[in-house]
Amino acid sequence: MVNLRNYTSNGDANSSDTVGKVITCKAAVAYSPGQPLVVEEILVDPPHKMEVRIKILFTSICHSDLSAWQGENEAQQVYPRILGHEASGLVESVGEGVTDMEIGDHVVPIFNGECGDCVYCKSEKTNLCDKFRVNAFKSVMTNDGKTRFSTKDGKPIYHFLNTSTFSEYTVLDSACVVKIDQKAPLKKMTLLSCGVSTGLGAVWNTAKVQAGATVAVFGLGAVGLAVVEGARTRGASRIIGVDVNSDKRVKGEAIGITDFINPKDTENPVHQQIKEMTNGGVCYSFECAGNLDVLREAFLSTHGGWGLTVVLGIHPTARMLPLHPMELFDGRRIVGSVFGDFKGKSQLPHFVNQCMNGVVKLDEFITHEMPFANINQALQLLIDGKSLRCLLHL
Amino acid sequence: MVNLRNYTSNGDANSSDTVGKVITCKAAVAYSPGQPLVVEEILVDPPHKMEVRIKILFTSICHSDLSAWQGENEAQQVYPRILGHEASGLVESVGEGVTDMEIGDHVVPIFNGECGDCVYCKSEKTNLCDKFRVNAFKSVMTNDGKTRFSTKDGKPIYHFLNTSTFSEYTVLDSACVVKIDQKAPLKKMTLLSCGVSTGLGAVWNTAKVQAGATVAVFGLGAVGLAVVEGARTRGASRIIGVDVNSDKRVKGEAIGITDFINPKDTENPVHQQIKEMTNGGVCYSFECAGNLDVLREAFLSTHGGWGLTVVLGIHPTARMLPLHPMELFDGRRIVGSVFGDFKGKSQLPHFVNQCMNGVVKLDEFITHEMPFANINQALQLLIDGKSLRCLLHL
Repeated sequence: MVNLRNYTSNGDANSSDTVGKVITCKAAVAYSPGQPLVVEEILVDPPHKMEVRIKILFTSICHSDLSAWQGENEAQQVYPRILGHEASGLVESVGEGVTDMEIGDHVVPIFNGECGDCVYCKSEKTNLCDKFRVNAFKSVMTNDGKTRFSTKDGKPIYHFLNTSTFSEYTVLDSACVVKIDQKAPLKKMTLLSCGVSTGLGAVWNTAKVQAGATVAVFGLGAVGLAVVEGARTRGASRIIGVDVNSDKRVKGEAIGITDFINPKDTENPVHQQIKEMTNGGVCYSFECAGNLDVLREAFLSTHGGWGLTVVLGIHPTARMLPLHPMELFDGRRIVGSVFGDFKGKSQLPHFVNQCMNGVVKLDEFITHEMPFANINQALQLLIDGKSLRCLLHL
Repeated sequence: MVNLRNYTSNGDANSSDTVGKVITCKAAVAYSPGQPLVVEEILVDPPHKMEVRIKILFTSICHSDLSAWQGENEAQQVYPRILGHEASGLVESVGEGVTDMEIGDHVVPIFNGECGDCVYCKSEKTNLCDKFRVNAFKSVMTNDGKTRFSTKDGKPIYHFLNTSTFSEYTVLDSACVVKIDQKAPLKKMTLLSCGVSTGLGAVWNTAKVQAGATVAVFGLGAVGLAVVEGARTRGASRIIGVDVNSDKRVKGEAIGITDFINPKDTENPVHQQIKEMTNGGVCYSFECAGNLDVLREAFLSTHGGWGLTVVLGIHPTARMLPLHPMELFDGRRIVGSVFGDFKGKSQLPHFVNQCMNGVVKLDEFITHEMPFANINQALQLLIDGKSLRCLLHL
């Protein structure tokens, strides 16, 4: 009770009233693909064993939410559903067995969990978790295969990406909740829940870009720009941004690109231009567009012998990799990166501290802010390529 | 002249008679795809600037020779041509500017050259050479775009893979000739010219297999068995050999496999069996079959999160990699390996010494020996899967 008292005395919330009870709160519910989200009252069950219920203070929209909302993948079309996976908030209550978090802790949800016990979590070579890895088809809790959300008339509302943050309250497995420094500004920390960690981590942890290296970034959305920021913080000598939207140039330059290519403005393939600009190709390329033709350009734009392409984009396609097996013998490599290869629970707190210390600049990523009720407007901004991250206040 | 005298006094050859002159000697000439090689007299020009003419003492046949001989790739069908790239011999004479070799030196040719000057050669990250990398379409010397071989009536005979070792004498760029310890047994060193270096190097240099790791090897020809030998020397805890020819089991066990799978003997896909045998998949798989369906099985047989597939097989196919882009997010990686990532001229001499010191066992790889005149018989042994390496004595 000490913690609870501490917490409530801060005036941040009044969780003593809600612990162990069903909470009625507002959420943005998806009822069918591409249709406006419905902001309405829902019911949120208390957390079960090893689960945590958190009060979301901020959430933003990522392209994966957009893809799910648009129903790009039929197998993912489970309705009604609460989308959203990039957020920050406070622990409202914890389920049985949760010992690493207490009521009032500042937290960010992670879609790529870390149980800490599986063979993956125990390996230093991967941040995937056998139990709580990304699974866009998963729509219920791991514990009992049921949902913790329901409509006011008792029908289940399904979960998304282990998180479902488009709600004032949400329930997650504790493996998918990271406790962070109480002094970290929660608003900005929302970005670390997905996009910024994914992009920076791909540079720091997956590619391990070194000072002086050359880098090309394909797709300058929030993830691509986080790659740019990662390359800048690592001292890359050249950072080439590629996007079909020339408006991205200004923001790219503000963060750190040294060159910009709009493929629509040129006749030569992008990889040829990049080869000419960099005497044979960049050391590292990052595919953040989720397009296989772009992926091939990214692959070919690296230098033979040692070039590495890191794939971050989601590819909801039936097509296979457009690479010929013999092309592997040119020494170019290609790897995927999930959540920037950060192990969420054990490594994200340090990343938070680095951001607090100014190692990483986050301000450029928040382009809009608005009340949660305006979530459909925020979706449209992302669709139109007008926003990087629109922060929704709950 | 000192070196020449030293050399001739050893009685190894009589090169003083031939230096600077056209040599008439026996070679096995390919005139059309799949037709028996014709062992006949040809003319071999002296080496030009930065070239070396060597007297081949031993040569063997690799699957790449077989593919070229069978004419699998139309663009490679240049005739008449002298195939062969795995050999050992003595320097007969050197062209202007060659300072790292002298007449009489013991050498092995390498199809994957090392000029020492290009951006690739100067990088520690690759063994590819900008100037003398593998190019199955190249059929002339780099210097002047001409051949050094001709028929007795003066028609050009084309080169193959920078080497053309199916001849008593051949001319190579000095970047494609490695001087080795004079005490090394040349007969066995023939194996280091391609197959054994390719397989062992893929384990040592490309994958960097560590003691205790688990390994699966797809295709137990000479290269695959060299992978097995590499894994054995690195202390792999489990080495699973996979081949559709059950005769390969005995040889595999003699070298070091701990398990054998013949895909024809089982209903379940090989990768499922390997996952069951290894609690989720091997750390490393090696594709030595040159077949894309096998490649996919090799890829899936590694453990998620950190599995690495090394592709060594040549894939003369129009098909692209049978891997879905989203499969990269499971943390499995795939890379190609050329000549075992050995830089030929700078690193092969040390590998030769390791072989002399017994680090690597080479005896199991030479299954047959016969006179050079019987080369077509040796080709047939390889086609029938009866031989690993048949050493031809010149």
